[in-house]
Amino acid sequence: MVQISLSRRLRRTPFSDGVEAAGVKAYTVYNHMLLPTVFRSIQEDYRHLKEAVQVWDVACERQVEMRGPDAGRLMQMLTPRDLRGMLPGQCYYVPIVDETGGMLNDPVAVKLAEDRWWVSIADSDLLFWIKGIAYGYRLDVLVDEPDISPLAIQGPKADDLMARVFGDSVRDIRFFRFGWFRFGGRDLVVARSGYSKQGGFEIYVEGGDIGMPLWQALMEAGRDLDVHAGCPNLIERIESGLLSYGNDMTDDNTPHECGLGRFCNTHSAIGCVGRDALLRVAREGPVRQIRPVEIHGDPVPPCDRHWPVVAGDRQVGSISSAAWSPDFETNVAIGMIRMTHWDAGTEVDVITPDGPRAATVCETFWN
Amino acid sequence: MVQISLSRRLRRTPFSDGVEAAGVKAYTVYNHMLLPTVFRSIQEDYRHLKEAVQVWDVACERQVEMRGPDAGRLMQMLTPRDLRGMLPGQCYYVPIVDETGGMLNDPVAVKLAEDRWWVSIADSDLLFWIKGIAYGYRLDVLVDEPDISPLAIQGPKADDLMARVFGDSVRDIRFFRFGWFRFGGRDLVVARSGYSKQGGFEIYVEGGDIGMPLWQALMEAGRDLDVHAGCPNLIERIESGLLSYGNDMTDDNTPHECGLGRFCNTHSAIGCVGRDALLRVAREGPVRQIRPVEIHGDPVPPCDRHWPVVAGDRQVGSISSAAWSPDFETNVAIGMIRMTHWDAGTEVDVITPDGPRAATVCETFWN
Repeated sequence: MVQISLSRRLRRTPFSDGVEAAGVKAYTVYNHMLLPTVFRSIQEDYRHLKEAVQVWDVACERQVEMRGPDAGRLMQMLTPRDLRGMLPGQCYYVPIVDETGGMLNDPVAVKLAEDRWWVSIADSDLLFWIKGIAYGYRLDVLVDEPDISPLAIQGPKADDLMARVFGDSVRDIRFFRFGWFRFGGRDLVVARSGYSKQGGFEIYVEGGDIGMPLWQALMEAGRDLDVHAGCPNLIERIESGLLSYGNDMTDDNTPHECGLGRFCNTHSAIGCVGRDALLRVAREGPVRQIRPVEIHGDPVPPCDRHWPVVAGDRQVGSISSAAWSPDFETNVAIGMIRMTHWDAGTEVDVITPDGPRAATVCETFWN
Repeated sequence: MVQISLSRRLRRTPFSDGVEAAGVKAYTVYNHMLLPTVFRSIQEDYRHLKEAVQVWDVACERQVEMRGPDAGRLMQMLTPRDLRGMLPGQCYYVPIVDETGGMLNDPVAVKLAEDRWWVSIADSDLLFWIKGIAYGYRLDVLVDEPDISPLAIQGPKADDLMARVFGDSVRDIRFFRFGWFRFGGRDLVVARSGYSKQGGFEIYVEGGDIGMPLWQALMEAGRDLDVHAGCPNLIERIESGLLSYGNDMTDDNTPHECGLGRFCNTHSAIGCVGRDALLRVAREGPVRQIRPVEIHGDPVPPCDRHWPVVAGDRQVGSISSAAWSPDFETNVAIGMIRMTHWDAGTEVDVITPDGPRAATVCETFWN
C-alpha cells in the first residue's frame, strides 16, 4: 500500500488531533483537506456504523457562503432546482451545473435567511465558479469560504448521543431541516442530514477553536453507546446509492444522467445558467444513467478507475464505485449504463483488473 | 505512516502504470490527481535529481485551454502581468488573482497562437474561475481541460536524454520557450521549464494513449544515463525557492506578499480583474513577504501545518515548508514574514511540533 505525503497544502481540520488519536489508518484528500477513510477496517467500521454511532470529521465539506441582496438570485443561477419554495431552516440537495448542463458539484444548500446561504460542497473548488459568476454579473453579494467545519454524527444511536450534548430538542429536527443549538458559548447550525442512510446529524462547527472540545464532549457523552471515530463508509454509501462527485459523476455528466432529474425543475428554474442546455435533456431524458449494479462472484479489488461494462464486445457503460457487501453477500457497485442495457435484470460483464465478471443491472440500491 | 485510499476520484494519469512499476512509495493529491512524492527516499531522490536525470509524472499540472477571438483578452483579465509583449512560442509564469488581488493559482501560461493559450495549473480548480469569468462577461472563447498530461525530464543529463528521443534540436530550446517535436505520430509541445533548478524540459503529452510508450522510450534511451522515475523533490524545491500554491501561498496572499512583484505590471495590465485592488500594494509594497528561513539544529519533522515564527512573545510570521538539506547541512524553509523582521540576518524562533528552534531570515534561497 502506498502512503500519503502530508503537507500544509493538504489541510488539517479542527478535528485532526482527535482523528489521529483514534488511530486513523488511511486518508483521502477532499477539497484540499484530509478526509479519514479507515479506522479499524472498512468492514469493521461498516458494521459499527450500522449498529452504534460514529463521529465523522467531514470538515472537508467546506462551505461557500453567499450573503447580500443578490444571494438568492445567485443561488438560483447555480442550479436547475427551483428554489422559490425553499424556506430559511431548510436544506436542499442541489445539482450545480455550468452553462452546458455539466455537473460542477452536488452540494447541500442551507438557507439561513433570504439573503444568506451556505452550500456544503463536494470535491471541487465551487467557490471559484460562484465567485466568477458573481463578479461577471456584478452581483451585489459577498462570496467566501467561512471558518465552518462540519462534524457528522451517524448511526442508529445518533439521536441518543446528540440529545446528551445538545438537549432533547435535537430529536425534533426533521429530515433536511436544521435548528440552532448552543455549544461552547456559540450557536451552531445542526441539521438532520449526512452521507449515510443510518440516520444522524451534521453539526456546522463555526470556529476551529471549539472543534476538539466538541469532539471530546461527544466521545465522553457516548462512551456507553459505543461511540467511535468514523468516516463515510465506502460499502454503506454504495449500498445506499449515495453518489460521490468525482467518482460517480464529473462535469461530463448532466444531473439527469446521474439520476438527479427529481432534483431538477428545469422549466421553472428561471435564471439557472445551465437551463437552456438542460431543457432538451429534461424533456427527452438522457441516453445513459447511473444504475446500481451487482457484480457476481468473489470480492472485487478496490475500484480506483473506471471498469468497462460490456455486452458481448460492445461497451455499454462503466463502473465507478464497487465494494464487497458483507450484509448483502455480493459486490455492490455504481455504474453509468447506456439506455440499451439499463433495464433492471439486464445481464452484462464488468472488466475488472482481475478479469471479466458476470454482473446484473439492478432496480434499486440495497439500503 | 498513514496510507492513501485510492478511488476513481483521485485520478490516475497516463503514466501511473510506469510510476507503480518504478516502485512509488508515496503519493500526494494535486488537482484531483495522483502525484508521486517518493520513490527510493526523499534524500536518495534528491541526490539522484542533482546528479543524473529523472522522468516525472506531473500530469497533475492540468491544462486550461482558452481558444477563440477573446482568448487573449481573457488571459489578461486573469493576471497582473502585462502580456502585450508575449509571443507565440513563449511561456510566462503568471500570478492569477481574483478581484481582491488574492492569488488563485500560479500557473505557467503557454501562448500557442494569438487566439490559443494553455495555462499549466497549480493545485486549484482554476478552470472554474476562468469559465465563470468568460461566461459572466459573455466572452467569445472556449474554455476547457484538454487531454494533455505534462511529463517532466529534470536533472543535469536532461538535454542528453531528450536529444536521444526527440533529436538534437531540443538542445536549442531556450529557457521558458517551447517548440513542437514529434513522437508516436503526434506533434507535442516541448518546453524548457520544470519545477526544479537542475535544468530540463516539460513535454505536454497530448493524448493519454502515447503516455506509456513515451515513458518507456525515455527509460530505455536513458539506461546508461542512470535515468530513474522521479518527482518534484521537497528538499530541492525549497533550496531553489520554488513556491507551492496551497503550501506557501493561498488566496489570502497577494502576489507581492509572495515575492512575485517582478511578475506584476499592475499599472499597465489593463483589464486584469484584480488591478484596482493591487495598485496600492504595488506602490506601497506588502507588509509581509515570503522569505527563505534557515532553521538551526537537527533535522525538523515534516511540515504539515503552519509553524509560527516568533520574536519574543510576538508572532511575526509562519513557516509553510521545511526540510533538512543534505547539501547545505541545515534545515531550509520557506516562511511568510512580517516587515518588522524580514531583513536578512534577523534572528527569530520557529515553533515546531518538537518545540522552539532558533532560526535566521536569509537573503536568498540556496540554489
